[in-house]
Amino acid sequence: MSKNLVVQKFGGTSVGTLDRIRKVAERVARTRAEGKQVVVVVSAMAGETDKLLGMARALCESPARRETDLLLSSGERISAALLAIALQAAGCPAISLTGRQMGMLTDSSHTRARIIQIDAERVRRLLRDDHVVVCAGFQGINPEGDVTTLGRGGSDTSAVALAVALESEICEIYTDVKGVYTADPRIVPNARKMSRLSFDEMLELASLGAKVLQIRCVEFAKNYNMPIWVRSTFDETDPGTLICEESPDMEQPVVSGVTYAKDQSKVTIKGVPDQPGIAAKIFCALADEGISVDVIIQNVSAEGHTDISFTLPAAHIRETMPVMERIAGEVGAREVTSDATIAKVSIVGAGMRSHAGVAARMFRTLSDHNINIQMISTSEIRVSCIIQQKHLEEAVRALHDEFQLGEDARAEPQATAAGERRKAI
Amino acid sequence: MSKNLVVQKFGGTSVGTLDRIRKVAERVARTRAEGKQVVVVVSAMAGETDKLLGMARALCESPARRETDLLLSSGERISAALLAIALQAAGCPAISLTGRQMGMLTDSSHTRARIIQIDAERVRRLLRDDHVVVCAGFQGINPEGDVTTLGRGGSDTSAVALAVALESEICEIYTDVKGVYTADPRIVPNARKMSRLSFDEMLELASLGAKVLQIRCVEFAKNYNMPIWVRSTFDETDPGTLICEESPDMEQPVVSGVTYAKDQSKVTIKGVPDQPGIAAKIFCALADEGISVDVIIQNVSAEGHTDISFTLPAAHIRETMPVMERIAGEVGAREVTSDATIAKVSIVGAGMRSHAGVAARMFRTLSDHNINIQMISTSEIRVSCIIQQKHLEEAVRALHDEFQLGEDARAEPQATAAGERRKAI
Repeated sequence: MSKNLVVQKFGGTSVGTLDRIRKVAERVARTRAEGKQVVVVVSAMAGETDKLLGMARALCESPARRETDLLLSSGERISAALLAIALQAAGCPAISLTGRQMGMLTDSSHTRARIIQIDAERVRRLLRDDHVVVCAGFQGINPEGDVTTLGRGGSDTSAVALAVALESEICEIYTDVKGVYTADPRIVPNARKMSRLSFDEMLELASLGAKVLQIRCVEFAKNYNMPIWVRSTFDETDPGTLICEESPDMEQPVVSGVTYAKDQSKVTIKGVPDQPGIAAKIFCALADEGISVDVIIQNVSAEGHTDISFTLPAAHIRETMPVMERIAGEVGAREVTSDATIAKVSIVGAGMRSHAGVAARMFRTLSDHNINIQMISTSEIRVSCIIQQKHLEEAVRALHDEFQLGEDARAEPQATAAGERRKAI
Repeated sequence: MSKNLVVQKFGGTSVGTLDRIRKVAERVARTRAEGKQVVVVVSAMAGETDKLLGMARALCESPARRETDLLLSSGERISAALLAIALQAAGCPAISLTGRQMGMLTDSSHTRARIIQIDAERVRRLLRDDHVVVCAGFQGINPEGDVTTLGRGGSDTSAVALAVALESEICEIYTDVKGVYTADPRIVPNARKMSRLSFDEMLELASLGAKVLQIRCVEFAKNYNMPIWVRSTFDETDPGTLICEESPDMEQPVVSGVTYAKDQSKVTIKGVPDQPGIAAKIFCALADEGISVDVIIQNVSAEGHTDISFTLPAAHIRETMPVMERIAGEVGAREVTSDATIAKVSIVGAGMRSHAGVAARMFRTLSDHNINIQMISTSEIRVSCIIQQKHLEEAVRALHDEFQLGEDARAEPQATAAGERRKAI
């Protein structure tokens, strides 16, 4: 493990203007002045990816994924080059590397590629030569040499993967919030920032819509036990949130946070013949298209037919419906419907493993607020309910209160994150 | 030679908006529908390169050239991906390639790299598979795998080099003007579009500031005898201008065109000891920095000292002055001054080779208008004068009249450009 090396990732808001790029450069230069080797991973400037994607979609309803990757990857190349230039202006020897140059080899699933390996030899050489290495996040190349991207928020994954490849001690993720909260502060005013939580908890939070970190980045961090320190780019004094392995001395509240996912759609195939293999047929077809589904329920069969519903991100509904129409025809189902008025609310907590009745308490709370539960899904440390979107904010607030997560309800642990960080590693 | 293949290059204005990208896609699709294999080379969307460069310069007075290349190359990648997407939307199988993917290998002179070779195997394979291949112009990679750019207007060079590598019959350059004119129509209202001119004439015109084609592109075309057909993107009926080898049946006016270069600066080193090797020292130092100078004059020596003046594009003055200050110190010169109020006006014509007195006629015309000539430079088919910038437009108009280049002064040859094109090849 390289004690002297740190990987710092800066998100789109952090490099959103030239002024902010200058500030980031100063911060990176300070870290280097403290004697650290620094590898920086950057996202595209805020709004850039959406702008590029908007242009592609204006030209073609479903732009080819290979060309979309080439298009979008420009965003991170631009911010990497600009940050390297700003660092040089600050007297800091810096060099910018593309996905290819940083050795980020991925598979060929354009727009959602998975990392195969990182050949970080060039990064290591540049570090030995005393450079700050600024890497374009979000992108890699496939074995054919074509540009790929890792999917939305993929720069987090780039950063953690690079931290692992370089045997860094920690991966610092700088963002426009101060850390991970018990709930979205825009919805729950008294939401509390957590000083520390486990990979598993963060994994559930990330997969459920907490926008702070991309789920794959947390998976990666968990698999390789790479601590992630989420911090604010703009508030250097705030200790942020440390995400690391669960340790016996870690506080384990029954519920750590309430989270939600808004942009969800529900697809229902009605009148499916109740025969073995039908569900497999449906979900294999979706998997073949690279579409991930979330919650699945199958109704009790009536007269040899049943209904199957599942949820998925609303963004994938356009590619999903033609697949479902085809499958419905093949299996003799009656019809396929979709509903975009749903949302998912979830409670997450490592403490659930050892506490019974948490789910029941959640259901009762929603029921007390006259909120109907359409679907339920659970994991070891999470309970999720699909509800009508219009009830979402009320549900989040009610659950946050019920499990006493607010600032007023529970004191922040005394230890600073920095102190805990030393303990954790 | 591949009779069925055409390389079409579209400039920044031609792909400046999504609507224009759609129109370019339609035009390319039509060429393909006529049974041609089409390779397209694109520039960055109009304004994009300046925007990126402006950001880099806001961060650092002299941004590192390697990072500048990575930054600027994004512009062409974006327009290439967008055009490929627009072509796909128009039902045309298309794929976008970066400089690397199109096999554009250059040397390592960042921001002004020279092409070493093109390995167009992937382009050829894609053409065989019936794709339209959209290549990002202006960029390549050096042997280390870093992104390079070919200098301003380099996309023209990319296009001609690719046409040569693919043994295309012709390279079509689509731009926002109808062709090459006898003078800048903004300055000379009766300027005439030339239907045809020789590589040599175009080379002089390009090097002297006619913005239609980059000089290196014409050099390349001349060296490999690749005809360039300059045409308007927006007016499909106009026959444009064909640039090809001089042929015996080609009209050879004494003067073909009047051209000018506005953004020039003059540097003067005063009181240089008049010893052998001083000029070599000065100009080798500039060459080492990759700075090209244009006109050079050395005054008659007085008391063992002399003055040396040279002109160069104003954009390079910032890098030039420190070099000159250093050299002035080393050789014991008195001082270095620069003057940004100069401009260059030139007359060009293949017919000069066989006509005497053309230069004298030019000097007399300028003198008749009370325009003082500061420096003079000539080639076989060109005479250039450095004058004060404020006299520039008057000088251009006066020379255009003197050599009877206007629409009213001489009839356009009868043959259409298309007819001439067939003849020329």
